[in-house]
Amino acid sequence: MKISIIGAGLIGGSMALKLRSKGMADFIYGIDNNQQHINEALELKIIDAGTDLEYGVKNADFIILAIPVDAARKLLPSVLDLISDHQTVMDAGSTKAGIVNAVKDHPKRSRFVAFHPMWGTENNGPASAVSDSFSGKAGVICNKEESAPDALQLVEKVAENLGMHLIYMNAEDHDIHTAYISHISHITSYALANTVLEKEREEETIFQLASSGFSSTVRLAKSHPEMWVPIFKQNKENVLDVLNEHITQLRKFKAALEKENYEYLEELITNANRIRGILR
Amino acid sequence: MKISIIGAGLIGGSMALKLRSKGMADFIYGIDNNQQHINEALELKIIDAGTDLEYGVKNADFIILAIPVDAARKLLPSVLDLISDHQTVMDAGSTKAGIVNAVKDHPKRSRFVAFHPMWGTENNGPASAVSDSFSGKAGVICNKEESAPDALQLVEKVAENLGMHLIYMNAEDHDIHTAYISHISHITSYALANTVLEKEREEETIFQLASSGFSSTVRLAKSHPEMWVPIFKQNKENVLDVLNEHITQLRKFKAALEKENYEYLEELITNANRIRGILR
Repeated sequence: MKISIIGAGLIGGSMALKLRSKGMADFIYGIDNNQQHINEALELKIIDAGTDLEYGVKNADFIILAIPVDAARKLLPSVLDLISDHQTVMDAGSTKAGIVNAVKDHPKRSRFVAFHPMWGTENNGPASAVSDSFSGKAGVICNKEESAPDALQLVEKVAENLGMHLIYMNAEDHDIHTAYISHISHITSYALANTVLEKEREEETIFQLASSGFSSTVRLAKSHPEMWVPIFKQNKENVLDVLNEHITQLRKFKAALEKENYEYLEELITNANRIRGILR
Repeated sequence: MKISIIGAGLIGGSMALKLRSKGMADFIYGIDNNQQHINEALELKIIDAGTDLEYGVKNADFIILAIPVDAARKLLPSVLDLISDHQTVMDAGSTKAGIVNAVKDHPKRSRFVAFHPMWGTENNGPASAVSDSFSGKAGVICNKEESAPDALQLVEKVAENLGMHLIYMNAEDHDIHTAYISHISHITSYALANTVLEKEREEETIFQLASSGFSSTVRLAKSHPEMWVPIFKQNKENVLDVLNEHITQLRKFKAALEKENYEYLEELITNANRIRGILR
């Protein structure tokens, strides 16, 4: 089939590479405001041709929307305006309630499948795309009852070819869960980077001393605002809830230290260690 | 030479493996309160024999103290009491002011070299030991002017054989820097784990959805209290300073979201992105 990737970056590019290698894509169009991304994606053979939105949408069997969540929410209705009942549109955004609500009453709603692949890195652009990125990761499909059975089946097949295991939930639940297991990690990491940058003027010392522990905690702080501001904006209420809880938890560590209550500190750490049983 | 490892765990065990493979160790004694660690270390050929503290200290040319920082500070004076001027003692603790002050006026102070290898994992015990762990990492030597030249040279040689690059600083500066680039990461990670565990009752959902971003941010939360409570205790003032700054930084994200000031949010993220230029 013919696939159009709107947003030929890290996520769209990685999907294109894998779907082509799996034989699911005969031809891949890339659509991107950033002409350099199109050029890079062509060079890397991620896409076969760059094109404009209207042509790309009209001439593909399957359309992947892999752009920041605010842009995706704005663009999706126009994409659905352009398609017929033989075409399917999937997004790849990290927030789901906003986009699902944006097309709730659209006459072509059933051609859209709301998808979130639980993978990403702190890098962006087609040069960062990796074919096997999604393998073994979770893919979430939201509000599946609002999608046509054949559209849903196609996205399930795509997810299978990407090597993902599927989880189904409604968009509101998805946004609560991701606030906990993805969005807060980014805020923590950004705040940690700012903490160190604020206090450590001798940057050379950070560079020399930084251990693998610090690097892994702060890695997400390299993630770009173009992607993350829209996510925080769309998931504001949930993210604020979790952020408040996180600050409360940090205050417990502060209180334990200030009061030199090391039994309490041990309790807090022992409780956190329970994550061992949950995350490999 | 003969080496005694006090604390045959992750750090001591990893050093033993590497120093043996580099030909620096003819015979390695292991000393550990935990008999199971001795048994495992013997089985894994990390040590050649288990022994008691007095025998191990008296019969080694080089003694590595690789136990939690509170135990190390308490034990070091007794170890120095037992040795002659031909022997050298090195520690491997994550805090340095406490241990250095504990032996400041000891008649054998010059036989001790205060060392901190900037490597660790969330695991412990000899079964987690890896020979190449320290390769490419920083090793910090503190207050080198308080060590005898030959003792210092020996530890420098050991660090070289472990594949580490050396940084010299005084113990107080070390403890400030490590509060920023290691200790705060652990508190953040523990608090993040507690945040998620507090709110997410459906633990299965965390497990299924958790992305690599979450896993890397929360990895350190698996670290054991036996090691980390003493570190936080010994470095309380510095850790509290950094923790307060970190909470302040998190509050900025909270304020930006609450006030829907997305330009400010973007500014905060862009500032955090500067870590890109500092950490690989």
